[in-house]
Amino acid sequence: MARAIEVAWKGEGCTGTNPLVGAVLVKDDVELSSGAYSRFGGEHAEVKALRGKDAESGTLYTTLEPCVYHGKTPPCTDIILESGLKRVVVGMEDPNPRIKGRGNALLTKRGLEVVVGVCEDEVALLNPAYLLGIKKGRTAVTLKVAVSLDGRIAAADGSSQWITSGEARLDGKALRNRHHALLVGAGTVVADNPLLERSAHPDLPWYRVVIDRQGRIPSTSHIFGARDLLWWGDKSQDVPPSAERIEPEDLSDLLVLLRERGIQSLLVEGGKLGAALLERGLVDRLVAYVAPVLLGSRGLGFSPSTWATLEDGARLRDLSIKKVGVDVRIEGVL
Amino acid sequence: MARAIEVAWKGEGCTGTNPLVGAVLVKDDVELSSGAYSRFGGEHAEVKALRGKDAESGTLYTTLEPCVYHGKTPPCTDIILESGLKRVVVGMEDPNPRIKGRGNALLTKRGLEVVVGVCEDEVALLNPAYLLGIKKGRTAVTLKVAVSLDGRIAAADGSSQWITSGEARLDGKALRNRHHALLVGAGTVVADNPLLERSAHPDLPWYRVVIDRQGRIPSTSHIFGARDLLWWGDKSQDVPPSAERIEPEDLSDLLVLLRERGIQSLLVEGGKLGAALLERGLVDRLVAYVAPVLLGSRGLGFSPSTWATLEDGARLRDLSIKKVGVDVRIEGVL
Repeated sequence: MARAIEVAWKGEGCTGTNPLVGAVLVKDDVELSSGAYSRFGGEHAEVKALRGKDAESGTLYTTLEPCVYHGKTPPCTDIILESGLKRVVVGMEDPNPRIKGRGNALLTKRGLEVVVGVCEDEVALLNPAYLLGIKKGRTAVTLKVAVSLDGRIAAADGSSQWITSGEARLDGKALRNRHHALLVGAGTVVADNPLLERSAHPDLPWYRVVIDRQGRIPSTSHIFGARDLLWWGDKSQDVPPSAERIEPEDLSDLLVLLRERGIQSLLVEGGKLGAALLERGLVDRLVAYVAPVLLGSRGLGFSPSTWATLEDGARLRDLSIKKVGVDVRIEGVL
Repeated sequence: MARAIEVAWKGEGCTGTNPLVGAVLVKDDVELSSGAYSRFGGEHAEVKALRGKDAESGTLYTTLEPCVYHGKTPPCTDIILESGLKRVVVGMEDPNPRIKGRGNALLTKRGLEVVVGVCEDEVALLNPAYLLGIKKGRTAVTLKVAVSLDGRIAAADGSSQWITSGEARLDGKALRNRHHALLVGAGTVVADNPLLERSAHPDLPWYRVVIDRQGRIPSTSHIFGARDLLWWGDKSQDVPPSAERIEPEDLSDLLVLLRERGIQSLLVEGGKLGAALLERGLVDRLVAYVAPVLLGSRGLGFSPSTWATLEDGARLRDLSIKKVGVDVRIEGVL
């Protein structure tokens, strides 16, 4: 299963709204082949691992339960049944309501030995947004902040370019490639006039979600020329011609609405929106680039006023800590 | 010289108010011996390297200029002159007014080849407090803070035990062993009732400097039983029997006064004193333990309100970044 997980990671960022999956075919304790789901709409990992191999009496390790319905590709259960496999070891059940145990049940019913729930914690790390989306019914939110040692994301005069080093900014930009959409507020658009592009996966959808409820963004902004815009704005104001208006009730509703449109993971880059989402418990993952600088108590913070005690405070789990240039990236699950 | 620097570090924390020094004797491109100054009042590095060796026509590498006066030990220049050395390579001139070039000049005058200023930046790192003390005429200040990702050293309710992990707290305690004294305010003493001890160097002086100008510390506090106390208090209040009263004009004057008493390096552990010292530009080194937790905007910060722009902000140099448990230690020179 460790090998299947390793193989699954090959598809990172390329599978769109579908989960990462890895599969390994083993016979007589020898790995015969492996496969990863590595392109949205492409062949499934199980199919790749089995193609052209004599799998008779073999074991297939797969990180996620095999699918049982005709989607963009035929059901993996059919291919497994035809292959002559004796045993299938499944990392975790697929919580997708269209599968949810049906794949495993079918294989068992047809006489295969099926083992479910192997390295489940590690398998879950392959697809946090996919799993969270099904569990909570909303898009998963990552908040990225560039922050000084004293917790400021801007100096007293509002300047924030640049708190962190070039290396950290580049590393931070790459986060966009791990998400389906980017959320920004009017403040960021007015201050930085950004294009909000990303550097990878030109074949996959990439949405910019803009909140501008006071209609502060001038129509001369670069963003007015961008594609794939979802715009939560003031009804009386113009929106970019290519933008689609959205009208959620609140931030929580926005995240439900985005998931319904196939956006499983949303990146939020700093600013006041971060505090608003944190306050409502709507941030699932925090990526903080901590710069070795002090900006003083009059600088702008990014955290809400919610918590009163040490126990209330939001502690990060599943930590990853890495030096990036002179800065430190601290990433974890909230 | 790199080897002499390596040797010098052996004395870290053990040389009291004297600087770390390392020396290496080389003849025909072979290292014959080495020595470090490793105990306050003990033999000098040069003497250790030369003892019992035939140094005739050899070269001595020493990180700091050899001393030229009778202190606790005879002058190193005498021993060098007796040794028959041909050449002395000196990392840096000793800025101590009693030496300051005189050692090098004497050796040159007596026919030795003397090279001064080799790896000077690295040599300077051996003795930052010693050098800063001579340059600025005050004790060198290290501020230690345990801080959340959003820059808080306490939650809104004032609780700060414990923001960081046990590993980080242990690592932080060890900082005391690198300093001559610890400075605390009344707030810390009243809140934590600490003993302010350290774990190493029982043979070297270790001062607790207490500021309690409103006389808030009750005489039942543990600190009233401690030795080596310097107390900047309210004149009308009792001080611990073993304490010596000090009456500096302000924080800046306090640091001058402490240096005059042989305290070259002072550790300040968090709290409001840190902000007051930062505001006055009196912090030379910051050691921040950053914990992966958010405490919210109502928590207590540690930085002053001084700075307005990104350029004003205090950026750390000579960075050292290290994971300590789940926390990150970020250390640098201000």
